[in-house]
Amino acid sequence: MNVTITNSLEVQELLRDAAGYNSEQGNPRHKQIVLRILQETVKLIEELDISDNEFWAGVEYINRLGKNNEAGLLVAGLGVEHFMDLLHEAKHAVDGHTGGTPRTIEGPLYVAGAPLRDGYDRMDDGCEDGIATPMFLDGRILDLEGQPIAGALVDLWQADSKGNYSHFDPSQSEFNLRRRIVTDAEGRYRVRSIVPSGYGCNPSGPTQECLNQLGRHGQRPAHIHFFVSASGYEHLTTQINLSNDAYLWDDFAFATRDGLIGDVHFIEDSTAATEHGINGRFAKMTFDFHLRPAATDKAQHRSNRPRALQEA
Amino acid sequence: MNVTITNSLEVQELLRDAAGYNSEQGNPRHKQIVLRILQETVKLIEELDISDNEFWAGVEYINRLGKNNEAGLLVAGLGVEHFMDLLHEAKHAVDGHTGGTPRTIEGPLYVAGAPLRDGYDRMDDGCEDGIATPMFLDGRILDLEGQPIAGALVDLWQADSKGNYSHFDPSQSEFNLRRRIVTDAEGRYRVRSIVPSGYGCNPSGPTQECLNQLGRHGQRPAHIHFFVSASGYEHLTTQINLSNDAYLWDDFAFATRDGLIGDVHFIEDSTAATEHGINGRFAKMTFDFHLRPAATDKAQHRSNRPRALQEA
Repeated sequence: MNVTITNSLEVQELLRDAAGYNSEQGNPRHKQIVLRILQETVKLIEELDISDNEFWAGVEYINRLGKNNEAGLLVAGLGVEHFMDLLHEAKHAVDGHTGGTPRTIEGPLYVAGAPLRDGYDRMDDGCEDGIATPMFLDGRILDLEGQPIAGALVDLWQADSKGNYSHFDPSQSEFNLRRRIVTDAEGRYRVRSIVPSGYGCNPSGPTQECLNQLGRHGQRPAHIHFFVSASGYEHLTTQINLSNDAYLWDDFAFATRDGLIGDVHFIEDSTAATEHGINGRFAKMTFDFHLRPAATDKAQHRSNRPRALQEA
Repeated sequence: MNVTITNSLEVQELLRDAAGYNSEQGNPRHKQIVLRILQETVKLIEELDISDNEFWAGVEYINRLGKNNEAGLLVAGLGVEHFMDLLHEAKHAVDGHTGGTPRTIEGPLYVAGAPLRDGYDRMDDGCEDGIATPMFLDGRILDLEGQPIAGALVDLWQADSKGNYSHFDPSQSEFNLRRRIVTDAEGRYRVRSIVPSGYGCNPSGPTQECLNQLGRHGQRPAHIHFFVSASGYEHLTTQINLSNDAYLWDDFAFATRDGLIGDVHFIEDSTAATEHGINGRFAKMTFDFHLRPAATDKAQHRSNRPRALQEA
């Protein structure tokens, strides 16, 4: 026999009281969200017959998740960040805002304040010379009609050849593989970088612990993150996913999408290498981004998500 | 116009994939729980029109909650731990297990391994002599027919006169105000302690931050926590809430219940004080606990909730 008390007056009043509905102070929106979370939580506990041990393991898991600063990684790994992208697109489609390069997840590893350069910069600090494969990446920022957008800001960040990100990996120099490039008159950005490796969750962290319970890996294909913005255009948060990666369509964070695959070309030609100022094998990739006109002022900006080294 | 995508094939498949339903590895129960959490999460996001900023503020809140080790405090403050008590009782009632002293929340501040004594001990280390009011607490552990249970274990813990708990308050000595007393032949436990003050959430912690948004305080009435257990009886997790406290029926953690009010008597009688080996004003309280017979072996034990200084 199933016991059901969640719809009882006692429980419903408990939850309303807990969510502050008996108080005239506080924030009505916050109360609304908390009440709904509580209502769904108790229904879930009752309907799935969550045991004390399961309940407290879950509470302790949240503590562990926070201590490891992995809540942002978990919402990516459980597809909720990707769901936010799908929901955005569905809302935009209703308003007729479609086309352009697709958005995809930001992930938790952006750091604000990377060096700002006009047109071109080298992104890597040279520490992986002889280890990583040099990569020359370029492309243009265009509007939906294919016209170049000069002065657009291309804010890009990527992992090193071990799949690690500067700032979060203290062995790397500050802002290694993070740059902000302003496009030239032709809407062009160019960087010299290295071929990134895919990211993998910390194998002893709480996100991977959850994925293990779900029978899932915690690997991402090699990719490069982008914020692309320009006055009058919708802010774009997206990624290029490298075509040659085994995890390209098996991304634990569900970020790979049609329209976001970058074709990497590996070149073994010493003359071409010399022309690029390097020796040996290197890679080239070209990727253009198409921005939508912004319907509102707000649409020109990224979310206020708390980020590492937030700019003043 | 409301956009709805949560029931679309794409989203439902995303969530099943995220919850590991496409994998043959992993734990089926874990998959079931995670899938349900994800389904409710995306419905909530869609139906309450959660913005990017709200979503990321929530994710960051979980990180902050865990960093402060306050997930256990928040589930108490939002009434979910109390709900677990109500659900237990409803299930027990269906099975005909009723009567006895009511259960109430454990809270997050138990520490395993407190000194174990026969019949009596002094619980406080004397550091608050002259500051706190001495309190003599006694009572009996009885069965539902009122017969004494000898050899029962009374594991009790309480705050000091500032509302702080040893171990979590490093200024207190180890196990201050924490004891395990084994009842005598008459089922009696006795302690000398001090009158506790009510607990208040850390005003700068994430639990109080949430309560502020809900227009709620984070205060508890003065109380004493108990685990009471005896072979053949249901384990009891409960509290005595002191009758003289302004927050008695306004507990932010919803733990006060009928049947759990302890009448504190304050005595100003120098002869009586001398008989108790002290000077000045003191308090007395008597509280009996009635245990139910255990229907199962498991019912004799507390949950496996992770606890501070877990015993080996």
